[in-house]
Amino acid sequence: MGDNMSILSVRGRGSFDFEVGKNLLSILKKNGIMIENPCAGKGYCGKCKVQILEGLNDDNLQEHRKFLSEEEIKKGIRLSCLYVPKNDISIELIDNEEKVKILDKGYLPDFKIDPLVKKECKKLSYDSLATSSDIEAILKSEKRALPIDIIRKLSDLEEGDIYTLVKYDKEIICIEDGDTTGSLYGFAVDIGTTTIVASLIDLNTGVELDNASSINPQKNYGLDVLSRINYACKEENGTYELSKSVIDCLNGLFEELCINNNISTENIYDITIAANTTMLHLLLGVNPKSLGVNPYRPIFKEGRTYLSEDLDLKISNKTRVYCLPSVSAFIGADITAGAIVSKLNTTKERVLFIDIGTNGEMILSDNGKMIACSCAAGPALEGMNITCGVRAGVGAIEGITIENDSVSIEVIGDKYPNGICGSGILEAISELNRRNLVNKSGRIKKKEDLEDDFLKSIIIEDGKKRSVVLVDDIIITQNDIRQVQLAKGAILSGIISLSNHLNLTAKDIDKVIIAGQFGAHLKVESLVGIGMLPKEFEDKVNYIGNSSKSGAVLCLLDKSKREEVKDVLDNCGYLELSLLDNYEGLFAKCLSFDINKLL
Amino acid sequence: MGDNMSILSVRGRGSFDFEVGKNLLSILKKNGIMIENPCAGKGYCGKCKVQILEGLNDDNLQEHRKFLSEEEIKKGIRLSCLYVPKNDISIELIDNEEKVKILDKGYLPDFKIDPLVKKECKKLSYDSLATSSDIEAILKSEKRALPIDIIRKLSDLEEGDIYTLVKYDKEIICIEDGDTTGSLYGFAVDIGTTTIVASLIDLNTGVELDNASSINPQKNYGLDVLSRINYACKEENGTYELSKSVIDCLNGLFEELCINNNISTENIYDITIAANTTMLHLLLGVNPKSLGVNPYRPIFKEGRTYLSEDLDLKISNKTRVYCLPSVSAFIGADITAGAIVSKLNTTKERVLFIDIGTNGEMILSDNGKMIACSCAAGPALEGMNITCGVRAGVGAIEGITIENDSVSIEVIGDKYPNGICGSGILEAISELNRRNLVNKSGRIKKKEDLEDDFLKSIIIEDGKKRSVVLVDDIIITQNDIRQVQLAKGAILSGIISLSNHLNLTAKDIDKVIIAGQFGAHLKVESLVGIGMLPKEFEDKVNYIGNSSKSGAVLCLLDKSKREEVKDVLDNCGYLELSLLDNYEGLFAKCLSFDINKLL
Repeated sequence: MGDNMSILSVRGRGSFDFEVGKNLLSILKKNGIMIENPCAGKGYCGKCKVQILEGLNDDNLQEHRKFLSEEEIKKGIRLSCLYVPKNDISIELIDNEEKVKILDKGYLPDFKIDPLVKKECKKLSYDSLATSSDIEAILKSEKRALPIDIIRKLSDLEEGDIYTLVKYDKEIICIEDGDTTGSLYGFAVDIGTTTIVASLIDLNTGVELDNASSINPQKNYGLDVLSRINYACKEENGTYELSKSVIDCLNGLFEELCINNNISTENIYDITIAANTTMLHLLLGVNPKSLGVNPYRPIFKEGRTYLSEDLDLKISNKTRVYCLPSVSAFIGADITAGAIVSKLNTTKERVLFIDIGTNGEMILSDNGKMIACSCAAGPALEGMNITCGVRAGVGAIEGITIENDSVSIEVIGDKYPNGICGSGILEAISELNRRNLVNKSGRIKKKEDLEDDFLKSIIIEDGKKRSVVLVDDIIITQNDIRQVQLAKGAILSGIISLSNHLNLTAKDIDKVIIAGQFGAHLKVESLVGIGMLPKEFEDKVNYIGNSSKSGAVLCLLDKSKREEVKDVLDNCGYLELSLLDNYEGLFAKCLSFDINKLL
Repeated sequence: MGDNMSILSVRGRGSFDFEVGKNLLSILKKNGIMIENPCAGKGYCGKCKVQILEGLNDDNLQEHRKFLSEEEIKKGIRLSCLYVPKNDISIELIDNEEKVKILDKGYLPDFKIDPLVKKECKKLSYDSLATSSDIEAILKSEKRALPIDIIRKLSDLEEGDIYTLVKYDKEIICIEDGDTTGSLYGFAVDIGTTTIVASLIDLNTGVELDNASSINPQKNYGLDVLSRINYACKEENGTYELSKSVIDCLNGLFEELCINNNISTENIYDITIAANTTMLHLLLGVNPKSLGVNPYRPIFKEGRTYLSEDLDLKISNKTRVYCLPSVSAFIGADITAGAIVSKLNTTKERVLFIDIGTNGEMILSDNGKMIACSCAAGPALEGMNITCGVRAGVGAIEGITIENDSVSIEVIGDKYPNGICGSGILEAISELNRRNLVNKSGRIKKKEDLEDDFLKSIIIEDGKKRSVVLVDDIIITQNDIRQVQLAKGAILSGIISLSNHLNLTAKDIDKVIIAGQFGAHLKVESLVGIGMLPKEFEDKVNYIGNSSKSGAVLCLLDKSKREEVKDVLDNCGYLELSLLDNYEGLFAKCLSFDINKLL
């Protein structure tokens, strides 16, 4: 071991050599230890805290102070991205998220069970010289050359043997001994920027047998897609690393589902995957650099079928993997999946589909004529960049009501609150607006401008900076409100732009569909209350949950849905908001809490 | 080492453990030592001689005696298939064949250089958002999904990069950095039962840069196709072993050609392979059992394109491998290759194509209407099952003239003769017939029935058994003549059956084409002289050499030839001689040396 090598011990996780001079976060990452770092180790999110047990140095303590309380500093807690160990060091990981709520269920419209993969049991019979044998018939019926291993298998069969043909879209993909028609399974997968969900589906019955989920391990390379695109482009083998991390995760989920349900990976024939455009590029190991720079162009958009080995998936080598199509860099397969779940392509109404997350993606369909846009809402709606913001885990405040003389809260898991998650923030700000603690431009009022004593009491004034206390030390600052305004303004301006494009107004729209694991937690009252949605939408909102996953399920079970999702790709226009005339003006107006005149 | 293990030393080849109880041939084979054994170790060809230097036992000497001279027995020479060593043993291999004459050249008809694989050099340009980029254009122009590694490669390119697209039948198979259009190569391969020939071809110029050949290593599993089919079916992993041996051989030839010509295997894009139906099955690792039993049905007939990795070929993984189609179990791709070389599908004449070997395969084309048959000539024509028969190697008598008072011979390599090869045997028997040493039924005349003293002097009488001495101890026995009669009778009966089928007589046929490395050595005079071909053919015979290889070259250089060879498959009928009325009667008549009335 060289002079500059030392040992890192991580309690409960083992010991690792490291080169002195690297920051702790990169050392942990290199050794496969995941730690939350939304800003990708750039030192401004303050989430990558660890506790130094032995070997502490305080070379750059000042840099850490911005993100740590005095108590944390005393305990030896530091930000791993800013901390550079100089000798052997012993640390403990801090469990920030116990069990994150992941929405894996989603609404499914009617469909028929007609998967692309089918089985057919047969008995081999050789006939006389004059007529052709089963084998010849099988070989001849194929338009494309059969894979050589199938020809080999056929050649080993004997007269009278029972065998099962497995066909994928009429192509024979394998031949199994005996009658195996009862064992026909597939996975439907949603790869979100934050979470990955996989469902195990019985393709004979259409039943979802089980599902499994995981945090997307790419979060170690940055929480948002842009950080990951940057990582992929700038680091050597960056694309490969990101691809491998998600493939490893999928392999783990698939293995778990197969083992828990006593199903052989050999009987998994088809996998459908929905994901946003960047996640799909990274899944396939395709360099996403063109997604990160103007004019933001995807390398591929079409829905495609791959072999499991193309992706290094450790399923059977005959398993097919179908990735749904994307409309643009910003309207990915997660949204086209949502479009078919919402029947945007076949609707006889005017339907607005919104997936609210870090980006707000939406499609407006006027009787099947579709136009989409994407707006950068930022992470505020998911609790990021918010002073007391946390992800929607146990201990997060998810609901708030400001009563006459108290603030009542709902906390996930009924635990002591450790912060406030996206839905909580929206409701809080909606409440601030309802109780006139803020003016229409979003400014927190001075104590002196308020009459109610209780309301006065929850306002903190620090010179010109004002905040509102919700409970204990959990506060909403002026800046938090600005962040949410930027987010809601972005989404509202998208809604208005799409409506204008199709010459519609808010009241013309028959149905508003809110998709996504995050959107499902947002109350209509909050959304209308902060002016993200116009009042006219109040009774038209439907939540369909994780429609990315349910779109993948649809494509897995009903092959005609792959045609439908292709229709979405072919027929959905894309509106680039930044190129619209006077978009900046519209966006500025949408920041206001008073939006009645806009739509 | 167990009690029943001993050591075999092979001079110049090393030492090997073996289990006592196995025969020597199987021990040698197991250790990768090739030794000629046409009968596949069944003890009736007498070719697998070795010299026992130490550890000799004479348990079953009587069995060996049939095949060995007294002198050989004294030297310790034994048949390895009959010899079972009981202790440590030391042996020396006997070099029966120095360098076998392999015919690798063949006649090529006119063709255009228009290979299926083509290159296109480009410069990457991204355009504005409105129009699509090169990458999108490339992706869109593909009907089939591009392989994922090509999408990955595309995604790594930068604006202005020079790259070369490689297309195989319009499908992009790879993308190379820079301008590589000058490097475009392929192999054309003929896999014969006995020999394998590979040509390295420049696909830009059509020039054959080099070629290499090898004895087919499958000969260690039996010299004829039936022995190999038996081995494949009866031994565990038999098909795999046979497949691997030919693939290993091809890998060796390909490596040799690439190294000797300073060409990277990465620049080999296409390989075309012609071979008989059994060789093709074994090449692809397809169980050939159905080829060995009535109704003798191939598992596949169509021409197919595989990836090099399907066959475990150690070329670039993008290399395509095209195998020409077969008409039936007995009319393989070697013959369809010959058919396009001979233009049987487009001819405006009546053309008879014959490939003379262990099997005589032939196609008669009447203005493009084709009918084929195959007849089991047996190995006699190639010098097997003939008392003094040897393969056409150095020292083999290949030409004989019986003069008035001497026998003059031509020997391959001008060495001292060690036997007589196929063309020599034919010429010898033709001479016996010409000089009336045999009667029309093939019987060697008694000395007393001859007048010429010299002719009397070369006849040996051993009771009722008679032979003819050619030179020293090289003789032609009555049985040898019978073997040749069986062979020539088979071929002649095929010619007559095809002609009858198309209502033609010998004089109606405009051209007779003799293909094959063996056929090329046979003089027309001999063929007519023994009554294998009718006299009417005497001036119509053309030799085209190894048309199996030249057909593969055609398909490599001119993609339209793959359509032509498919036409042959689709339009060539197959006549099963054994199912014809009175075929036995015809065959019996064809044994005679007097065939004038037959055709």
